[in-house]
Amino acid sequence: MVVAHTRVQAIYRVRCDARAIEARARAIAVEQSVEMPVAAITDDFVRDEIVGRVEAIAEKQPGLFEVRIGLAAETVADDAGQLINMLFGNTSLHEDVMLYDVELPTELGQSFGGPRHGVHGLRRRAGAPARPLTCSALKPQGLPPKALAELAEHFAQGGIDYIKDDHGLADQAYSPFAARVDAVTTALRRVAPAGAGAPRYMPGLSGDLDNMRRQIAIAAQAGVDTVIVAPMVVGLANFHRLVHWQAFPRARRRWRRVPQLWRALRLFPRYLS
Amino acid sequence: MVVAHTRVQAIYRVRCDARAIEARARAIAVEQSVEMPVAAITDDFVRDEIVGRVEAIAEKQPGLFEVRIGLAAETVADDAGQLINMLFGNTSLHEDVMLYDVELPTELGQSFGGPRHGVHGLRRRAGAPARPLTCSALKPQGLPPKALAELAEHFAQGGIDYIKDDHGLADQAYSPFAARVDAVTTALRRVAPAGAGAPRYMPGLSGDLDNMRRQIAIAAQAGVDTVIVAPMVVGLANFHRLVHWQAFPRARRRWRRVPQLWRALRLFPRYLS
Repeated sequence: MVVAHTRVQAIYRVRCDARAIEARARAIAVEQSVEMPVAAITDDFVRDEIVGRVEAIAEKQPGLFEVRIGLAAETVADDAGQLINMLFGNTSLHEDVMLYDVELPTELGQSFGGPRHGVHGLRRRAGAPARPLTCSALKPQGLPPKALAELAEHFAQGGIDYIKDDHGLADQAYSPFAARVDAVTTALRRVAPAGAGAPRYMPGLSGDLDNMRRQIAIAAQAGVDTVIVAPMVVGLANFHRLVHWQAFPRARRRWRRVPQLWRALRLFPRYLS
Repeated sequence: MVVAHTRVQAIYRVRCDARAIEARARAIAVEQSVEMPVAAITDDFVRDEIVGRVEAIAEKQPGLFEVRIGLAAETVADDAGQLINMLFGNTSLHEDVMLYDVELPTELGQSFGGPRHGVHGLRRRAGAPARPLTCSALKPQGLPPKALAELAEHFAQGGIDYIKDDHGLADQAYSPFAARVDAVTTALRRVAPAGAGAPRYMPGLSGDLDNMRRQIAIAAQAGVDTVIVAPMVVGLANFHRLVHWQAFPRARRRWRRVPQLWRALRLFPRYLS
């Protein structure tokens, strides 16, 4: 959520004895920002701005508290990876703390940008302004490109709008990315010519940033305009770089995120949507 | 650990009723590999090789089982990010399962490589073959490069071998990476000339792969030969790419990992070391 705070609001759920929660919250605020005894900090800017602040403590259940920590936006430096670094920090090592929610200052939220197309873009592209969108996954991994392409063709004939790689598909020898994109897009063109309302293949990107750029080039060349990626696996900063990458003039690409790793990070499930 | 298995051994700890553990283990094996009912798979290669196998189940405590799943090495495609994708998969969404350990087939382990220098390299560089190595962190974040450089100089005068950026330091406006590297390396050269036995600054890389390459270039230019990075934040495949990046002939760089995010992933703590 993007809100009118000047500081990043990191909201943790903390299992703690009621008598100890104020001290525990202060310890979290320090650990997630300067990571040292505040008494040893002599610099006024650091003490006044960079040290995390306990903004609120609320008891949600006996022994379970919601602790709101304000972190200086400057610590994030407009870097999505660094945002994750600040939010999780050393507290991710502590069993009693879970990151429950985050609120970003407006300016920081704008620096990251949001969805460029969103569900409305997906609806427009599918020629489906109001009805439910349909989506299915190509699986199981291990099949060769030809078999996955046949499956995609059946999906398209059955009216599926978006056909995605299952999350396990990467650049494996049994169905290399380039061969898969070629086979599936060729099969889909047998069902309907490219354009608004045509069923779309969403291949999954994998590997490092260089690999993913090559995969986008291959996909764009084959007429693909929508891809999926697991931001937590590839690194949020790399995901951000790709979204804002303008090397391809036709690259009005849509992005769909897949949830792998998110829940493992003790994030509240709303971030899965 | 690298062992003489032909399949990746993913070892999960599962909270489960004893009567249900066999079915639960089979469900995990399927979910972490093909993600669909095995009965619907007609391809022999997929059924024989790609479907995960339950290799062992052992009760560790009443209601807590260790389940060893064998995953086909082909699914990983020599991609460190894809390895994480396979190991965590959809099971990372399930509260009753924790990834406890991993054993890689020898060949896959070799494809990733291991530490290029290890602690012996760090010892040699510090001129300290036997005594304990010393390391400290520049902090708090928020200080300007000059103040961090003064701190580094004091550390070096006090005999610290390795002086690292605290994990919160990235490329923030209050101490940009380039200015910090310049200030700290200049300060350390006042204490001792570069070379074996000289105290070393280990700046922390951040941002996307392009950013990190630029940071390495800046660091190498300033005579730095050791850097730190948080592989789970920058993405394991990008980390792997950097380690094997040969663009700088002098780049016999050492790498130190920092643990941020690892514990959040429900990994057993041994991976923090």
